[in-house]
Amino acid sequence: MNDTSRTDITRELARFVVESRWSSIPEAVRHEAKRALLNWAGCALGGCRDGTVDTALSALSDFSGPPQATLFGRSERTDILNAAALNALSSNILDFDDTHLRTVIHPTVPVAAAVIALAERSRATGAQLLHAFILGIEAECRVGNAISPEHYDAGWHITATCGIFGAAAACAKLLGLDTQKTIWAFGLAANTAAGTTSAHGSMTKSWNMANAARNGLMAALLAAKGFTSTEQGLEGDRGFARMYAQRCDLDEIVRGLGDTWELAQNAYKPYPCGIVAHPVIDACLALRDEPGAAPDAVERIELRVHPLVRMLMGNAAPLTGLEAKLSVHHCAAAALIHGAVGVREFTDACVNDPAVVALRARVTLVDDPAMPKAAAGVTVRLRNGSTLEKYLPHATGSLERPMSDEALGLKFRSLAEWGWPQCDTRAFIELAWSLDELTDAGAFARAAAPR
Amino acid sequence: MNDTSRTDITRELARFVVESRWSSIPEAVRHEAKRALLNWAGCALGGCRDGTVDTALSALSDFSGPPQATLFGRSERTDILNAAALNALSSNILDFDDTHLRTVIHPTVPVAAAVIALAERSRATGAQLLHAFILGIEAECRVGNAISPEHYDAGWHITATCGIFGAAAACAKLLGLDTQKTIWAFGLAANTAAGTTSAHGSMTKSWNMANAARNGLMAALLAAKGFTSTEQGLEGDRGFARMYAQRCDLDEIVRGLGDTWELAQNAYKPYPCGIVAHPVIDACLALRDEPGAAPDAVERIELRVHPLVRMLMGNAAPLTGLEAKLSVHHCAAAALIHGAVGVREFTDACVNDPAVVALRARVTLVDDPAMPKAAAGVTVRLRNGSTLEKYLPHATGSLERPMSDEALGLKFRSLAEWGWPQCDTRAFIELAWSLDELTDAGAFARAAAPR
Repeated sequence: MNDTSRTDITRELARFVVESRWSSIPEAVRHEAKRALLNWAGCALGGCRDGTVDTALSALSDFSGPPQATLFGRSERTDILNAAALNALSSNILDFDDTHLRTVIHPTVPVAAAVIALAERSRATGAQLLHAFILGIEAECRVGNAISPEHYDAGWHITATCGIFGAAAACAKLLGLDTQKTIWAFGLAANTAAGTTSAHGSMTKSWNMANAARNGLMAALLAAKGFTSTEQGLEGDRGFARMYAQRCDLDEIVRGLGDTWELAQNAYKPYPCGIVAHPVIDACLALRDEPGAAPDAVERIELRVHPLVRMLMGNAAPLTGLEAKLSVHHCAAAALIHGAVGVREFTDACVNDPAVVALRARVTLVDDPAMPKAAAGVTVRLRNGSTLEKYLPHATGSLERPMSDEALGLKFRSLAEWGWPQCDTRAFIELAWSLDELTDAGAFARAAAPR
Repeated sequence: MNDTSRTDITRELARFVVESRWSSIPEAVRHEAKRALLNWAGCALGGCRDGTVDTALSALSDFSGPPQATLFGRSERTDILNAAALNALSSNILDFDDTHLRTVIHPTVPVAAAVIALAERSRATGAQLLHAFILGIEAECRVGNAISPEHYDAGWHITATCGIFGAAAACAKLLGLDTQKTIWAFGLAANTAAGTTSAHGSMTKSWNMANAARNGLMAALLAAKGFTSTEQGLEGDRGFARMYAQRCDLDEIVRGLGDTWELAQNAYKPYPCGIVAHPVIDACLALRDEPGAAPDAVERIELRVHPLVRMLMGNAAPLTGLEAKLSVHHCAAAALIHGAVGVREFTDACVNDPAVVALRARVTLVDDPAMPKAAAGVTVRLRNGSTLEKYLPHATGSLERPMSDEALGLKFRSLAEWGWPQCDTRAFIELAWSLDELTDAGAFARAAAPR
């Protein structure tokens, strides 16, 4: 059943983006935007040397435009559309990006990748970048709210499909588009939104982000020149909400605009894998400290989880690091063996380590529809007949147990160390916390790559 | 209800594309490919000066790569991805392109735009270009067959959503990809397919084609470098067919591959507007020759048509040429007044001509579910009380009454005259009929633009 009473949703959202003033953005939201961008930059640096990025860059470089924008962690520069695509790819590939928990959107990737490339080119100030970014996240997550959970449940890759609206909104704001042109940008976004979760486990999963970032930026660039589109990209009969979801509540897109901020609902991951596995990991890390829990002593590990976990991360026998990111079995085994679940635990080497393979084979998934999605119960049955149990109601990084600014800084350092060890991490972190004071937002991007 | 029995559709289609040999393509299909490309080139030339193309080019030129490929009818050259996008835009903007009647796909636009740009860059022969093009059309239309009519009826812009598979297939063939990489190209296509008919009546309608051509070519370029994707882009649980249609018959994609050719089902338009209006136009042109049918004498015009006509072309009062292309009312009025329905009849000037406006207001649409989609009945009621009637079972340009090679040549001339009058049309038409003999397929593109 769809809400069919509203015919001005796209216009109202566009008007909000256009009329928003920096002075009306609460300080807490501004600070959260810096946290999101610091976390995102770390993810981009951590992923920048991944084969996925090398492969995409080798495919695109012959066709790329002038060197206008930074590729995070890399010496190459490309035109802003390709930079948006490639930085989206880098920042998503490790599955370490942030999460808007209500929708399971990873909100920063498509928005930041697009608007940071544009900001570098257009010499925006740091405050203009932050403002556009905040509005992009707002548009993206509100569109997601309107069609959740049906849209994601149906198999759409919600970060890509909704992220394109966020990228379009942020870039429209930075370009200073009026309401009519912002409406057209949303119409173009609605007509180029794509991506399904069938791509998960392959390089295309992150390409969905790249496509969203590129096409969202392109929508704003086209609209800026007067390229027309549908006026009801979101709410129309054949608009996005109705084409991509069996049920929608369009009022979610506009109710309380400017009073509440979706960025306040953003969470950051301590582990670089699907977020539904995080309570399992926390529980396994806690159990590892219990006496007698050495891997050799374990007979069986039972994970009691919401059925969504099997749907999203039910791969019991991953063969590669990429596949392991969608294997809760691997997460549990790695946590118990290594006492850490970082980028290293999702390398092919770790995934195929005989000790990990052996323990992973002893993991059993128990679907429990009554289990909250945020929680998990882990039972470790030991060979000696005894049992260790841990119930985790909220994982580290959840809204109930958020990562601190300091923890985000440490996460950034470890990711930079992994992907671009030459990074002056202390200086970059300082830059992130003072983003609103930068006269040239491009400094943020340029500090994240070799000169 | 979905056919869930097949799990190798994508692989079988990919293998067909890879293993196809030029020698096994029937002569009639080769000839039809030349007809399709001549018709397409005319459409591209006719549309190349449209404001839509100027606007898109002005938005993209700052970010475009090296001048690798021809923009039909224009002096600018761009990288092949932007050329694919912009030539798709030019060739669709007049709504004069071809039609695969079973699916209402306009098959050549996304496939030709992508593969011609790639062929120019890769110095393919004319035969290689034709071969890749034929296979692209085959993939595109078979995917469309599998999800028709539900997919289009739901509001998806089928030429864009299926065209991306055609562009991917053609470019994969021209790049010489193996079966695995072709499968990945289809997976990437499935994850970037987009476009709805909500865009109709705005510039975004043709941008949907541009996006399909660009992303189809991009899918092949990425796959060529080893960029991985889902193996079941078409038939998977969250593959294209199930995500984009309520019902699908996957066997349509592979049944009789190599025995039948979808290009043989291709039709060419004598009028530059939505094809469902063509029987109405033919009928009105015929009625215009009847004694007493002068516009001043007309009291009312009743169009008895299948309900799809109202859905696709029901705009009773268009304000622009673009809107008029989706107004069967305008088509009828223009035919009765001007005795011709060409590019000139879809200019803003003609649409707002008081005589046309007045007659258009007297057109009434009568939905008749029993009317075949290919047919129309027109009744002209005259002020003197008498009535003229015409029932048209098949329009000019239908498979039952196809345009001749000569008529296609004349159409090309009139379109070149409209968009790029400097074209040596005689030489270009000769080039089109001898495409299979060209040692450098790029000559075809270069002959369609200023030196």
